[in-house]
Amino acid sequence: MSSSSTPSWQTLAQQKRESILAAIPKEWRIENIPSVEDQVDVTEYVKQYLTQEEVQITQCGADEIAKKVGGGVWSAEELHCLHEIFFDAAIQNAKNLDTYYATHKKTLGPLHGVPVSLKDQFHVADVETTMGYVGWIGTFEGRKGTGKEKVVESEMVKMLRKAGAVLYCKTSVPHTLMSGETVNNIIGYTLNPKNRRLTAGGSSAPVGFGTDIGGSIRIPAAFNGLYGLRPSVGRLPYHGMANSMDGQNSILSVVGPLGPDIASLRLVTKTLLDQSPWLVDPLVHEIPWRPEQEAEIMTGGDKLTFGLLASDGVVNPTPPVRRALDIVVKALQAAGHEVIPWTPPSHKDLQDTGFKTWIYDGGADARAAFGLSGEPMSAQIKFFNEIDKEFSASDIAANNVELRRLKKEYLDYWNSTVSKTDTGKPVDAVISPLAPWPAARPGRYSYYGYSTWVNILDYTSVVVPVTNVDKDVDEKEVAYTAIDEQDKKVQDDYDPEIYDGAHVSLQIVGRRLQEEKMLAVAEYVGKLIGK
Amino acid sequence: MSSSSTPSWQTLAQQKRESILAAIPKEWRIENIPSVEDQVDVTEYVKQYLTQEEVQITQCGADEIAKKVGGGVWSAEELHCLHEIFFDAAIQNAKNLDTYYATHKKTLGPLHGVPVSLKDQFHVADVETTMGYVGWIGTFEGRKGTGKEKVVESEMVKMLRKAGAVLYCKTSVPHTLMSGETVNNIIGYTLNPKNRRLTAGGSSAPVGFGTDIGGSIRIPAAFNGLYGLRPSVGRLPYHGMANSMDGQNSILSVVGPLGPDIASLRLVTKTLLDQSPWLVDPLVHEIPWRPEQEAEIMTGGDKLTFGLLASDGVVNPTPPVRRALDIVVKALQAAGHEVIPWTPPSHKDLQDTGFKTWIYDGGADARAAFGLSGEPMSAQIKFFNEIDKEFSASDIAANNVELRRLKKEYLDYWNSTVSKTDTGKPVDAVISPLAPWPAARPGRYSYYGYSTWVNILDYTSVVVPVTNVDKDVDEKEVAYTAIDEQDKKVQDDYDPEIYDGAHVSLQIVGRRLQEEKMLAVAEYVGKLIGK
Repeated sequence: MSSSSTPSWQTLAQQKRESILAAIPKEWRIENIPSVEDQVDVTEYVKQYLTQEEVQITQCGADEIAKKVGGGVWSAEELHCLHEIFFDAAIQNAKNLDTYYATHKKTLGPLHGVPVSLKDQFHVADVETTMGYVGWIGTFEGRKGTGKEKVVESEMVKMLRKAGAVLYCKTSVPHTLMSGETVNNIIGYTLNPKNRRLTAGGSSAPVGFGTDIGGSIRIPAAFNGLYGLRPSVGRLPYHGMANSMDGQNSILSVVGPLGPDIASLRLVTKTLLDQSPWLVDPLVHEIPWRPEQEAEIMTGGDKLTFGLLASDGVVNPTPPVRRALDIVVKALQAAGHEVIPWTPPSHKDLQDTGFKTWIYDGGADARAAFGLSGEPMSAQIKFFNEIDKEFSASDIAANNVELRRLKKEYLDYWNSTVSKTDTGKPVDAVISPLAPWPAARPGRYSYYGYSTWVNILDYTSVVVPVTNVDKDVDEKEVAYTAIDEQDKKVQDDYDPEIYDGAHVSLQIVGRRLQEEKMLAVAEYVGKLIGK
Repeated sequence: MSSSSTPSWQTLAQQKRESILAAIPKEWRIENIPSVEDQVDVTEYVKQYLTQEEVQITQCGADEIAKKVGGGVWSAEELHCLHEIFFDAAIQNAKNLDTYYATHKKTLGPLHGVPVSLKDQFHVADVETTMGYVGWIGTFEGRKGTGKEKVVESEMVKMLRKAGAVLYCKTSVPHTLMSGETVNNIIGYTLNPKNRRLTAGGSSAPVGFGTDIGGSIRIPAAFNGLYGLRPSVGRLPYHGMANSMDGQNSILSVVGPLGPDIASLRLVTKTLLDQSPWLVDPLVHEIPWRPEQEAEIMTGGDKLTFGLLASDGVVNPTPPVRRALDIVVKALQAAGHEVIPWTPPSHKDLQDTGFKTWIYDGGADARAAFGLSGEPMSAQIKFFNEIDKEFSASDIAANNVELRRLKKEYLDYWNSTVSKTDTGKPVDAVISPLAPWPAARPGRYSYYGYSTWVNILDYTSVVVPVTNVDKDVDEKEVAYTAIDEQDKKVQDDYDPEIYDGAHVSLQIVGRRLQEEKMLAVAEYVGKLIGK
């Protein structure tokens, strides 16, 4: 694609990197970052650069910030945890909000002054969307001169503004979005701040929005010790976002929040639903926030029943994840709830059928995006270069029928648990690993089955941080017998020395469109285990 | 496909026709049916064969029948309006229901004793599903020896049984389901009983279920003077039904009721939703029956606003349909409601994009079904034989993106009517033709745009019978100037002499997933115009 007069992809990526860096004021930049060996965990380390109040603010969730600003304790502008990109606009926005508050003696909306980060698929006026593609720099989704560049806003962005949120940064993405490791040719690789030997993804904002087609909300949430909600398709508005393989209609990417507590996730979810998103996004179902669904759980009188997915039979969870499962199960049982084994229809079949939907186009969309600039694909997603045959309409229809059959089979299994519980009702939620390890090591994210089964079934899932790796407790299992080579590879990746300190999280999975209930269950579980 | 030992498709079709006829007791058959010329309207004519009580029963809606049986006035067995196919099973079923009532002094469920007809896509135990294909005779959806033949039941069938309905017949379908004229090589062509010069479709049962991907609930409802509900995708359970081009995921067929009054449609819809269909069909959204949505309309205090789609700009409605629009508009205005012109984004664009979804597979599914027996395609759907190129995954994705864009554009237009109404709210519903004529003449169903726009946008629609053609009133417009050749052809089809007496119906169209509200609006409109 490039001619002699066009800058190389390397030059374009370099320029973009510099402009991102330039958007961070010099006095805020940390020079001389210690090496990984000297400082594995940088989450405490960075506090030396902040005042006590700033530390306090960065440890607040969106819910608490909204309350503090609403009560006049903090001003919106004071909340300068603005890290990159559209920082000046955010401060101006915050000032406007403060003026509004001073004039009207009330907040603009329920998210008044709450800083919200957005994944780099959201279109924001005056801000570029590259989605990690060098070829998208200076374009609208790869097309030049559309007039939409830095003008169009995603519906979600408009709604967040109406609610008073302060949009201040967009978080990086894996190019094509189809990897659990954030790597692209613009910003390179994103490490985990809690353990820089591991992969990160996401940000540690008071609340941020991600998208999830195979785990991309839940993976950064889990790996960074945050809560994260993967709603079902059609609950929150995706309209107007950039996407990869847009128009693939079998397994859809969803948008959802991640943050430090359930109260923050509930606040933003409820705030969006209160704006009737079905009036701006034709694919959103008219399902308002249903307080009765969470009330059922929060009143807490009833005995709950849980299914425990100890293993999906394809790859086993590693020791710290097994310990996390154990912590949650014991806490629930101690509180009088019931936990039964979850032995569902084959997850392998689910994964095989689900995976096909992601390669319907034989990699055409990915190759086109990379072809714009000539930049290379990262190892994580270069499988898009190794396939080429597009599925035909008949192939796609056949796979869709199989997918529907598997969904029905799973639904029937879920219903069948009614005969296995003491309560005479089917399980309320499934406790499941989100990945076989606490986090993946760079370049070694080889198994996605624990996150993708939720996308394939379109279930509701909330990630709950449970514990941290302790190398003295979470030892390697000496006598472990691997299921097969794939499982062996995953188990071999686990090394207590490398993983020490890493966040260990699980997911609480509910049926389709059970967002209110699952947030309440996740909050309850979090409280039980002291999170 | 046929070898020398296999019977020809003609023989198979003939045998099937005979077995259908044999299922109707001799004493119920009407021999010597008069010619079309002698008896154009047979709806009154058939009453000579019924007792006064039988006539009374056949004129009752499901709602009234349920009340009569629930009150012990009629027994379930007495309701022998069973026309074909699984007639003995229905009587046995009715007897069992009467026994239940005698023993328990209460009904089994809200549809206790209500005869319900089903389109021949529903799988019913002990009953064959041919969907009009000769090649499906003796098979399960074209496959032999699956063990599912006459065993599997669609989820909807199970739910109707639970509610106490008496299933007694399956109504015929156009082969491939992709035509507004019911024609196939088994039963031939179905004429309109009200005017045998026109096409029919559907049945005149107290309540029946149809499916609709381009109008197939609304077309038979409208052409036969019935009410018909086309719900949005994901409201009622389609799982376990036979289908054509199954797995095409862009515009989905939906299942819905048709019957003589809104009370019947409401009864069956509410009954199904009260059984939580999302627990048996993975594609149904968890949206229970919402009484507050209909209460808003039924209390009737509020002024309603309507959009009037006088023409879609592609083909104009013929004189009787224009008169029907006028009747409804005047009745609404007289009752104090507001009607504004509906001038939406291009319906032509909608149709062009929507139509592509129905030929994604280049006719492969249709050709395979016909290939099973060697039977020929009817003229109505032989376009499936004249195409062959399958869409690729990338083509499909691009079309899906365009479809989403058009949905959003239409949604925005709907919202924009807020600035055009006196009430300060957007229109509540759109009054639209369902077809350019009251009904199509055999072999002349050349334009589907008035029904398909609803499917393409996935809106909720209820057909309302408005009037009947009066050849002295609904004259041809002498000075009519056609839009183009297509419009001219449609207008030329209208002949007052031929159409005299035919039902003229319209549809009331609401936003997506507005079933309760649209049923209430349709009922209100029906009352206003004295239906």
